[in-house]
Amino acid sequence: MFSQSMVDLGQKRSTIREIFEYGKRRAAEVGAENIFDFSIGNPSVPAPDSVHQAILRVLEEEGPVGTHGYTSAQGDAIVRTRIAESLNRRFGTAFHADNFYMTVGAAAALSACFRALAEPGDEFVVAAPFFPEYRCFVESGAGAKLVVVDADIEQFQINFEKLEAALNPHTKAMIINSPNNPSGTIYSEATIQKLAALLTRKSAEYGHPIFLISDEPYRELIYDGLEIPFVTKYYPNTFVCYSYSKSLSLPGERIGYILVPDEMTDAKLAYAAICGAGRTLGYVNAPSLFQRVASYCTDETADTSIYEKNRNLLYEGLIRLGFTCVKPQGAFYIFPRSLEPDAVAFCERAKKYDLLLVPGDDFGCPGHVRISYCVPTERIERALKVFEQLAAEYR
Amino acid sequence: MFSQSMVDLGQKRSTIREIFEYGKRRAAEVGAENIFDFSIGNPSVPAPDSVHQAILRVLEEEGPVGTHGYTSAQGDAIVRTRIAESLNRRFGTAFHADNFYMTVGAAAALSACFRALAEPGDEFVVAAPFFPEYRCFVESGAGAKLVVVDADIEQFQINFEKLEAALNPHTKAMIINSPNNPSGTIYSEATIQKLAALLTRKSAEYGHPIFLISDEPYRELIYDGLEIPFVTKYYPNTFVCYSYSKSLSLPGERIGYILVPDEMTDAKLAYAAICGAGRTLGYVNAPSLFQRVASYCTDETADTSIYEKNRNLLYEGLIRLGFTCVKPQGAFYIFPRSLEPDAVAFCERAKKYDLLLVPGDDFGCPGHVRISYCVPTERIERALKVFEQLAAEYR
Repeated sequence: MFSQSMVDLGQKRSTIREIFEYGKRRAAEVGAENIFDFSIGNPSVPAPDSVHQAILRVLEEEGPVGTHGYTSAQGDAIVRTRIAESLNRRFGTAFHADNFYMTVGAAAALSACFRALAEPGDEFVVAAPFFPEYRCFVESGAGAKLVVVDADIEQFQINFEKLEAALNPHTKAMIINSPNNPSGTIYSEATIQKLAALLTRKSAEYGHPIFLISDEPYRELIYDGLEIPFVTKYYPNTFVCYSYSKSLSLPGERIGYILVPDEMTDAKLAYAAICGAGRTLGYVNAPSLFQRVASYCTDETADTSIYEKNRNLLYEGLIRLGFTCVKPQGAFYIFPRSLEPDAVAFCERAKKYDLLLVPGDDFGCPGHVRISYCVPTERIERALKVFEQLAAEYR
Repeated sequence: MFSQSMVDLGQKRSTIREIFEYGKRRAAEVGAENIFDFSIGNPSVPAPDSVHQAILRVLEEEGPVGTHGYTSAQGDAIVRTRIAESLNRRFGTAFHADNFYMTVGAAAALSACFRALAEPGDEFVVAAPFFPEYRCFVESGAGAKLVVVDADIEQFQINFEKLEAALNPHTKAMIINSPNNPSGTIYSEATIQKLAALLTRKSAEYGHPIFLISDEPYRELIYDGLEIPFVTKYYPNTFVCYSYSKSLSLPGERIGYILVPDEMTDAKLAYAAICGAGRTLGYVNAPSLFQRVASYCTDETADTSIYEKNRNLLYEGLIRLGFTCVKPQGAFYIFPRSLEPDAVAFCERAKKYDLLLVPGDDFGCPGHVRISYCVPTERIERALKVFEQLAAEYR
């Protein structure tokens, strides 16, 4: 009577959401201050004040009909120009308005890319650890196959030997996500160069391009003064999927874009396919007020120094307690090894202390746990004492 | 390399959009005041001032983290409660928060319904005239078949003989849209009763429910003091797809909902399927600020008296000029017969006068033209002189 796969997806929440909902129930029982909920990636740092100012400015400048009316399906042209100019300033690129298609957040951007690209029998490849919803978008959304490459658990860069083994003539695209959810690592310039070389070689071998889909919601959340390589400069067949959810702390507003560089093979057809996919999925236009707001704030970020402080505190604390952990360079996640091989069992044990962690299994990386540190700093300080009790159980 | 169907959909704009873009080009050439563009349904009446006040209120009450954070996938619970209460007040219903799933506008609501319901071989039936994007959502989006029932061109109610002939065991659901785009007619209580009786009988005959999908963005745009029958009261197996785009003049903000009544067969499974479909299509949550804003304004509308005035002016003018036309009772469209059998040829002739009308062919109703009268009243006054010149060509 209903689509069984849709019922299943609706009934089975993601593991992250399950833990988050459990945390809310426990908080109601024992008080929110006693729950150490590190399950969800909901920014804890407020949007910068410039967002508030931009909302007022747009309302005043555009009036209600201008602010709230339809924009063209690809997004307001001035908005797209401002976004292009911001990237050009910051990354030395040469984009223009028509490289951009505004989307209802990164999930919509990814969904539209998969739908635009997928033909029967296609495969999309991703290196673990990866954001679990990719599987839903690729498999249920676009009817394609998600191929997972085992993680390089030493550095969370890419295991190129295993990646090369996973590529084949059915590979339509590879998904990358740097800074990475859940590991927090950034793909180094060397990694991006090596990846570009491999995909270029394999594209030639198969006689068709293997695209990159670069999921970049954490692009501006980077620490230690690091710089991030802008992927289209290394590999032109790249769709960049961006969201302002994390950089401007606007996850509920659903505003982002797809960037299709001119240098992409058949760029105009690619852009048309994105437009067709957006239309098919029922996305009429990205929310109009927040298109303008984002375009006025695109050089800014929420106060990421708070996340960096949290990262330092948590990384140093976990290392001190004997955890094995790659130091995150961005985003607001840390992904240590669990203290027993079964991460699910480890998370269950942590739960007894009201310490809510997400096992790495759904991220394609068993034996690890994701800790989202987009929480108040004092909660991390208190949580470290609880981590200590938990670690003591394993000594 | 790309999905050919997505490229096709992206390259071939809808007829409405084609004409609208032509109008913009002509306006740049000869001045906007000389173009009589009746092509697009973009509300010309501003959002009520309460929308502006609600934006400020939400920002102040919730602060940035509360306003712009993720909501649950089905939408904020308080928002859904307010919406339920508003319907209960106005229509004597007994809904509660968990009957509602907030969506990114009506297009997203429809897309999620089709995806939630469609199984291989399914058919969705619609009586002409109908909104052309249904075809895209049903066929490309959900992989099902759209079956069109010829229009009742005398009244734009439903030709029940033809509808009954179109129903079969593969019919999963029927789509209705009242007040109707493009005809502006409202299905009378008698029509809804007769439809409910037919679908109930056929559901029993086939051994499974035939659902109704009631697309209601124009529900509050009704004239002459008419009342509109609330469909779930007549037929419980109804998904209501609603949008605030027209009632509050917020089309660019993309905010609406799906209503799943408790009385629906397997209502909880239906709701789960909607959740699964929303997830699959990449809709994380409906835009968070405008969820709250809509919930504060859900008893209000933009000033619809302007549309009613436009309707009167245009209807009376067209009748005076000899057009055959069903008087619209709602929405902001009028759908007269073209003055020659080929509506496309008629619209081409109108174009010579910079009078931009949309042929009824894509609406499943050849020989008619859609005129969107959500434009300034003075433009209609001036346009009637142009209609007169056009009509003179046919005398």
